[in-house]
Amino acid sequence: MDFLPRALADLIDELQRLPGLGPKSAQRMAFHLLQAPAGAPERLAGALGRLKDGVRFCDTCSFISEAPTCPICADPRREPALLCVVEQPMDVIAIERTGEYRGRYHVLMGAISPMDGVGPGEIRAQQLLDRLAAGEVEEVVLATNGDVEGEATAAYLAQAIAAHAPAIRVSRLARGLPMGGELEYADELTLARALSGRRPV
Amino acid sequence: MDFLPRALADLIDELQRLPGLGPKSAQRMAFHLLQAPAGAPERLAGALGRLKDGVRFCDTCSFISEAPTCPICADPRREPALLCVVEQPMDVIAIERTGEYRGRYHVLMGAISPMDGVGPGEIRAQQLLDRLAAGEVEEVVLATNGDVEGEATAAYLAQAIAAHAPAIRVSRLARGLPMGGELEYADELTLARALSGRRPV
Repeated sequence: MDFLPRALADLIDELQRLPGLGPKSAQRMAFHLLQAPAGAPERLAGALGRLKDGVRFCDTCSFISEAPTCPICADPRREPALLCVVEQPMDVIAIERTGEYRGRYHVLMGAISPMDGVGPGEIRAQQLLDRLAAGEVEEVVLATNGDVEGEATAAYLAQAIAAHAPAIRVSRLARGLPMGGELEYADELTLARALSGRRPV
Repeated sequence: MDFLPRALADLIDELQRLPGLGPKSAQRMAFHLLQAPAGAPERLAGALGRLKDGVRFCDTCSFISEAPTCPICADPRREPALLCVVEQPMDVIAIERTGEYRGRYHVLMGAISPMDGVGPGEIRAQQLLDRLAAGEVEEVVLATNGDVEGEATAAYLAQAIAAHAPAIRVSRLARGLPMGGELEYADELTLARALSGRRPV
């Protein structure tokens, strides 16, 4: 595509670095922006420019925030005895969307992955133990992902919490069939978990 | 999501306006940019800022260009007797990728769609007739889309060219089964076109 103007090729390059965008979608977006009503690329550029100055991570839980303390940590109606541990800030949003959780969060900013050289020291594990040492938390929900890294992280944290704060109850999100999911299409592992985790009705 | 920092919510909003991006993908991208190495949002913002100044439409064919005449129109090795008519600048890129076309282009910047109030006057139809009147073009390939608007546009242009420049040969892209496509999965219309357009082997 050496006949594309430099400015357009640059934009397609940059868009392609975004997660989930292949060369064709990036190209479609760049052309869309090129033919969009005046102001559209500028508005997007403006929002990008304000991003790093307008957003930081909460000093307590590491969720995103404008202030040093995020609105969830600052909310006095949030149950201080219940702490949900997640890998990424986006996971907080997913759990908030359920409307079912009234506790607080601790974002690890990653998951243990020896293959990628990420050990407990590279995630916010020590900060979690420090928070627990303060004595306010009574239950920790380990809401890491269901993949190998998430499971390893949950196993490590469960052990560390048992060693440092044995009085704290530790739970893990339930595994089973997704709502509306058909048994026939479930993978063996999920189905095995759903069986072993069966609940009386 | 009223607990998201304003700057992040704005970015998600702007990303959602891009074609093919739903709320979740926009959110994933915004978080990716937030946690990306320093400079990534700025580079994307910079590319957006340079877009409108660094890109214009070719005065002749309306393909994108840095100069008043695009590299394809300016290329003397391009066959001046062959003109391919497409709806959008992106269609030029699709045809260039085949490496099979050595003529020039005319971008209509739209397709006739009475439902949306787009008539022949709203696309670059007159400019096409003006180019043909110059006398250099011998064959026009109508490469508009296969949808209702594209077919209507091709039908209109074929008629207009026959009226204004009856000596010019007019062709339309072949219709049929896509390469690698299975007959069983082809829709009736495509299969009917493939049948009626069958070629001796």
